[in-house]
Amino acid sequence: MTHSVLNALLNPDSVALIGASDHPARIGGRPLRYLMTSGYQGEIFPVNPNREHVQGVRAYPDLASLPKAADVALLAVPASATVQAVRDCAEKGIQTAIVFSAGFAEAGDEGKIMQQQMLDAAKETKLRLLGPNCLGVFNAYKKFYGTFSTVLDGHFIEPGAVSIVSQSGAYGSHIAHLCRKRGLGVGYWVTTGNECDIDMAEALGWVVEQPEVKVVLAYAEGIRHRDRFIAALEKAQQNGVSIIFMKVGRSAVGAQAASSHTAALAGSDTVFDAVLRQYGVYRAKTTAEQIDIAYAVTRAGQVTGNRLGIFTLSGGFGIQMADDAEAAGLDVAPMPEAAQDELRQLLPYASPVNPVDATAQAVTDLPMMTAFIRAMIEKGQYHFFAGILGSGPSSPTFADALCQALDEATENATSCIKCLTMSAPVDIIRNYEDKGFLVYEDGAALIHALGAIVQLKQWQEAAKDQLKASSGSTIAIPQRMMNEHEAKHILGQAGVPFPAEEFVDVMQDPAQAANRIGYPQVMKIASADLPHKTEVGGVKLHLNSAEEVRQAKQDMLDRVRQLAPDAHIDGVILSPMISGGIETIVGVFNDDTFGPVVMFGLGGVFVEVLKDITFRIAPFNHQEAYRMIMEIKGSAMLEGVRGELPADIDALANMLADLSQFAASNAHQFESIDLNPVIVRPKGKGVVALDALIIPKK
Amino acid sequence: MTHSVLNALLNPDSVALIGASDHPARIGGRPLRYLMTSGYQGEIFPVNPNREHVQGVRAYPDLASLPKAADVALLAVPASATVQAVRDCAEKGIQTAIVFSAGFAEAGDEGKIMQQQMLDAAKETKLRLLGPNCLGVFNAYKKFYGTFSTVLDGHFIEPGAVSIVSQSGAYGSHIAHLCRKRGLGVGYWVTTGNECDIDMAEALGWVVEQPEVKVVLAYAEGIRHRDRFIAALEKAQQNGVSIIFMKVGRSAVGAQAASSHTAALAGSDTVFDAVLRQYGVYRAKTTAEQIDIAYAVTRAGQVTGNRLGIFTLSGGFGIQMADDAEAAGLDVAPMPEAAQDELRQLLPYASPVNPVDATAQAVTDLPMMTAFIRAMIEKGQYHFFAGILGSGPSSPTFADALCQALDEATENATSCIKCLTMSAPVDIIRNYEDKGFLVYEDGAALIHALGAIVQLKQWQEAAKDQLKASSGSTIAIPQRMMNEHEAKHILGQAGVPFPAEEFVDVMQDPAQAANRIGYPQVMKIASADLPHKTEVGGVKLHLNSAEEVRQAKQDMLDRVRQLAPDAHIDGVILSPMISGGIETIVGVFNDDTFGPVVMFGLGGVFVEVLKDITFRIAPFNHQEAYRMIMEIKGSAMLEGVRGELPADIDALANMLADLSQFAASNAHQFESIDLNPVIVRPKGKGVVALDALIIPKK
Repeated sequence: MTHSVLNALLNPDSVALIGASDHPARIGGRPLRYLMTSGYQGEIFPVNPNREHVQGVRAYPDLASLPKAADVALLAVPASATVQAVRDCAEKGIQTAIVFSAGFAEAGDEGKIMQQQMLDAAKETKLRLLGPNCLGVFNAYKKFYGTFSTVLDGHFIEPGAVSIVSQSGAYGSHIAHLCRKRGLGVGYWVTTGNECDIDMAEALGWVVEQPEVKVVLAYAEGIRHRDRFIAALEKAQQNGVSIIFMKVGRSAVGAQAASSHTAALAGSDTVFDAVLRQYGVYRAKTTAEQIDIAYAVTRAGQVTGNRLGIFTLSGGFGIQMADDAEAAGLDVAPMPEAAQDELRQLLPYASPVNPVDATAQAVTDLPMMTAFIRAMIEKGQYHFFAGILGSGPSSPTFADALCQALDEATENATSCIKCLTMSAPVDIIRNYEDKGFLVYEDGAALIHALGAIVQLKQWQEAAKDQLKASSGSTIAIPQRMMNEHEAKHILGQAGVPFPAEEFVDVMQDPAQAANRIGYPQVMKIASADLPHKTEVGGVKLHLNSAEEVRQAKQDMLDRVRQLAPDAHIDGVILSPMISGGIETIVGVFNDDTFGPVVMFGLGGVFVEVLKDITFRIAPFNHQEAYRMIMEIKGSAMLEGVRGELPADIDALANMLADLSQFAASNAHQFESIDLNPVIVRPKGKGVVALDALIIPKK
Repeated sequence: MTHSVLNALLNPDSVALIGASDHPARIGGRPLRYLMTSGYQGEIFPVNPNREHVQGVRAYPDLASLPKAADVALLAVPASATVQAVRDCAEKGIQTAIVFSAGFAEAGDEGKIMQQQMLDAAKETKLRLLGPNCLGVFNAYKKFYGTFSTVLDGHFIEPGAVSIVSQSGAYGSHIAHLCRKRGLGVGYWVTTGNECDIDMAEALGWVVEQPEVKVVLAYAEGIRHRDRFIAALEKAQQNGVSIIFMKVGRSAVGAQAASSHTAALAGSDTVFDAVLRQYGVYRAKTTAEQIDIAYAVTRAGQVTGNRLGIFTLSGGFGIQMADDAEAAGLDVAPMPEAAQDELRQLLPYASPVNPVDATAQAVTDLPMMTAFIRAMIEKGQYHFFAGILGSGPSSPTFADALCQALDEATENATSCIKCLTMSAPVDIIRNYEDKGFLVYEDGAALIHALGAIVQLKQWQEAAKDQLKASSGSTIAIPQRMMNEHEAKHILGQAGVPFPAEEFVDVMQDPAQAANRIGYPQVMKIASADLPHKTEVGGVKLHLNSAEEVRQAKQDMLDRVRQLAPDAHIDGVILSPMISGGIETIVGVFNDDTFGPVVMFGLGGVFVEVLKDITFRIAPFNHQEAYRMIMEIKGSAMLEGVRGELPADIDALANMLADLSQFAASNAHQFESIDLNPVIVRPKGKGVVALDALIIPKK
């Protein structure tokens, strides 16, 4: 269904243009001009009640007069006329319509109503809508330009391995322009605007299925359909398509602006961030970074490892790049000893370790430099070669000789990704690119991009090995507040380990239960009305005998009744004192956009001072839980510091995965779950949660 | 002294070129060509024994034949001939010589010897040397080009408010090229190479005194002369000159490459980083960042605050910029309510809060847009205005009209720094710049640069208010290991607060001393041989009576003698048990380059897991100590979390400053000092160090 719709939208054999204008710079004129000059081979049906021809093409007075239902209709009419135009499209049996006009949901209540009317009209048939308030689409392979974006004024964009899916038309245009400027072809380009129907997730899902697509530059302010979005990300991982995502609204001001800007529920940015990490999407912080990484994905061959050999003519540049490489997770592995000797023989002043510094002398003897680099690449077995040329190639005569020398030096290095940094005019850069080099002006940008493609590769590999998380079973959760004992009973069924415990009701003598538990033990008040037990004297530690337990119970009931006279008290809970282990906290909450989200963090100052917590959407499996645990700053605590034993990270990961599966299958029944603290014991000894709180669905 | 030398070097009225070549592309030919074509007004004396004229200029057979001692000599002869050339310069009475040739200390032992010989020859007179292995200098104001850098081939660089001081010639050339490309003039340019004599600190000290200089782009791998370097940084702060520093060797591999690359002691990068922070220098991570910030410093007027008004034609861009602004420490303050109404009246669809989103409609009515922006700037009272134009201005006709509209809108905004982001050809950008706009292609780069200039301004202001740290008094430190009691006695004189304590020697009954201290108390072994007391049973807590103390002493002596039979034991130390407060650690070590460095961190997991520590070089004052404390990640702990009282940060800052002054005045007497733990009590209650260890100078 989606497939045929998106095919009609992005691969149409016929297109109707409602509001077609003779003026090639108007919204109704520009798409027609593009379609006429691009070489588009499909049929074009301009619709204009006042003219027989528009820009020299035969026009039709209305949609009903078209000889056939076009695959896609472009609606270049004012907002006020759009509802009727959509009705006409629906009646004609058109499959998809792109609504350019603004003035809908983004513009206030009247616009919202109009947007809904338009959607209702479309839903009466199978008509699907893109927009409103969008800049449309293009498919450069088919030379189909269903857009009025000015970015194509003067120059089209060549098709290529990059595609762009953007909520914002202006952002989509800007980044398309930057791709072109960088020499990157763009195949499919979709802007979704207000997303009254087709959203960026649906468009993304189609784009990542196209065989020409290697990388998608995505932009969003928020997501409407969790499942569509996740499905698109999963498909991208399976197909080895890299997604470089710009999600705005990181900051408080930004998030506020985002919700005033679109009708989207922005969702919590933290959760969004977790989703992207979970599904192997690279979240870019800047537009420049998006382009830099897309360039690397597009131009680099297969990424097979992270070892980087740096070749420089000046030590300082080499060091700078080595610094950046370490931060980017690349391995600046030294040359093998024997190879170092060989390089030293070729060039006695060279520093042959890595960075390999041939010094400025190397350029005075290019054949020698060629031999030197060839030896470096052959013996170094690097996955990446990065040569630093500085401003040398800005002189055209020298640039050609140098390019020739580098090409000869690297011609056998087929399994090595060849990169250069230089500043030079664009035609010189294209010449180097034609020889298979990735060229960056800034060394830091190159290294950052290489780090990103290694990361993307690792994510894609990990996704292949990863079993889908199974869903947990449905367990009935009472739709009322529960006491701790009840909450533990439910979560125990979900696989969360708790210490043995005994519930003793208000009237019952606790001695027998206490003896079964053993000493020392803990007593806690059991009351659905008192989630914060300490504050009302509802926790007593270090009880060492049945007599102490009996006395403590009486004291606790007296005190709690005094401090919380309105609370209904069910009784007390007895459990063994647990000491040692590492304190962590685990929670689940229901996000408006993404559903149940599992949170994990270390207890104490890590959570309270450093906010050292991380998130995943449910469900996920053991491996993902492991990644989640290891990405908090304090994870070294769990691996054992100061001679402590390593903690049972495996058991913790199991617990998190089980909880996530329970959460996914029972999301409709709860608002949130807290397990605080969860004690992680030394390896092999498991984990145990000491408290539990479930807030049922409101 | 330095002044006259650097004046001769960078502002010479006459220049000798030893090894002058007729070939304008050779090392001995290029400087001559530059000097001939640049319009340099000083005298030029080529020296060449084989020719009467070089490049048409009268040449001299040797230095002795020159009609006068030139202010500066450029030595373009091979390394092997350089020592003699330096001798000749010295004999002629020349003040400064620039040695271009490589093959000295960077090239092995022979080179090292030659470099020393050259230096010895210079030192016999007052001849000062720049280099060897450097690309020389230029002064674009005077059109003096004492360099063979190819970066000037074809185009000179206009003089301007940027200067460049770089150890690496290649880096210096590259960054000069990037400045030119960005339209930034470069006044003074110095590359120092091997720094056998004049180093980058000395050059920097001169450059920051020149009235034309607003910003220095600096590059170093290491620093040779601490005091020169610090003096240069202080002078820059006083003169309001911003330094944007690229110090390579952050990573392990990078630092290793740096030490193989130059003869410099790279010093510890962490300490270097602390020094830059301490003296208000911006440390850039990338070259692109250096240029972006230099551009902002140069083009922006006075920075008077951090409020940023964002104007956008597309919501998404505005949100993205707001995100970046928050991270950069800029305040995206909302428009006043009344002004929002005014903007809404001008443009009903606008989102007038901030980011102010005029929507794409604004460009259809430029006079309205002009009025809109004018109102925004007048009413918003922003320190920065950032307008987002996307790829709009890439069309020349539209670009001019837009530029006109923006110019009119902002013509009265004299106290507001006006910035734009756009992608357009360079001539269009220059046109906008001529109207006083700062223009960036990437919004993130703009915001990052604005954050940096606000930061630089704050540092310069803070430096003005800041009193110089006074030096501490000299206190004799025994040049042997000391026991804890002795170490505390010395550091107590330096102002470090310790609890009252009593030393009891091995034979003495501890009862009287114990009663003076009071209970509960702590006993520790006093032995210069046992810095790690716990491991040998040398610490006993919770002693509650004279009898317990007596018994504990006997037990402790027995146990320590058994576990450490070779240790000399002086006795035991008694002190009151201290509980509560926040545990921190303080230390001092002597860095090879920068001398005594004070370290501060929070105890426990903060140090052990998170490495949450920070450094300053000694001495520093209370304010600097305060900044130091507040920059650790866990500083919130000291301000009070979870309802705890705020800690006595003032007392802690006093202690750190006192210790730093003691350390500076007594650096020759110790290797390191440890105070671990130092307990910080609630505000007003002071700090107290519970242990002390001094390692005397080796």
